[in-house]
Amino acid sequence: MTNPVTITAPAGVPFIEIVREFDAPLEAVYNAYADPELVRQWVGPNGYETAIDAYDLTSGGRWRYVQTNPEGDSFAFNGVFHRVRPNELIIQTFEWEGLPDQVSIETLRFDDLGDGRTRLTGWSVFPSVEGRDGMVENGMEVGVTEGYERLDALLA
Amino acid sequence: MTNPVTITAPAGVPFIEIVREFDAPLEAVYNAYADPELVRQWVGPNGYETAIDAYDLTSGGRWRYVQTNPEGDSFAFNGVFHRVRPNELIIQTFEWEGLPDQVSIETLRFDDLGDGRTRLTGWSVFPSVEGRDGMVENGMEVGVTEGYERLDALLA
Repeated sequence: MTNPVTITAPAGVPFIEIVREFDAPLEAVYNAYADPELVRQWVGPNGYETAIDAYDLTSGGRWRYVQTNPEGDSFAFNGVFHRVRPNELIIQTFEWEGLPDQVSIETLRFDDLGDGRTRLTGWSVFPSVEGRDGMVENGMEVGVTEGYERLDALLA
Repeated sequence: MTNPVTITAPAGVPFIEIVREFDAPLEAVYNAYADPELVRQWVGPNGYETAIDAYDLTSGGRWRYVQTNPEGDSFAFNGVFHRVRPNELIIQTFEWEGLPDQVSIETLRFDDLGDGRTRLTGWSVFPSVEGRDGMVENGMEVGVTEGYERLDALLA
């Protein structure tokens, strides 16, 4: 049994909110974002291999990774960390290199719920409503849901 | 006589488009964004002094400056350059430190119009519609218009 992912994408505005709770302490959840080897293991849909090129989780650091599906198709993503406060907040840019220069910005907040539980709240803002809609229609929910289930397994 | 600034901020979405033409060649306009000493001279409303802390105009570089008005009030801004292609494109984050963690993302395109003329098109995306509206209501137009007039003077 896993916790649900709540994805909110209101019509007509370029926002996506993603809320997910974890049955694991704040520091452990944050560490799964901070350690690139752990990120590699949980991020993205099931069955994809992730190779991390860069992952400097500091304010001003860059990140880039490439995901390859079982058919051999590769998808590269990159961005910059605008603000990092450990165990609290990550603000980063996000670009899928298949749609270059369409850069979104994500704010991820880590909340300690007590009793060894943690809530993640992500707020993504896209440069157009169409870009947001395209992200939702192209399997984002599957990638998020499956990635967070693998993160559950890593944390267990 | 100066060229007009066209600011478009449609209701209900968190976007601002700013279009401005300059009677100066592409390379000169880009250089006024690339050289921090020139940026210091033209950016912001008239009567403000700008001090530049950091300005590394490369993909992944950081920037920060502090503007002080004649009354002595200071306003600090910072961000990260997500993508820089000289004479073509700058994508950067933008944060006013008076409203921390409310980070917008700006895409600035430089277009050569021929005959030594250049068009700048800026696309700003805010993390909320209220944040966008606040920016428009708090004198953004004056700052942009006066800044670009001082840029005209620098380019002349």
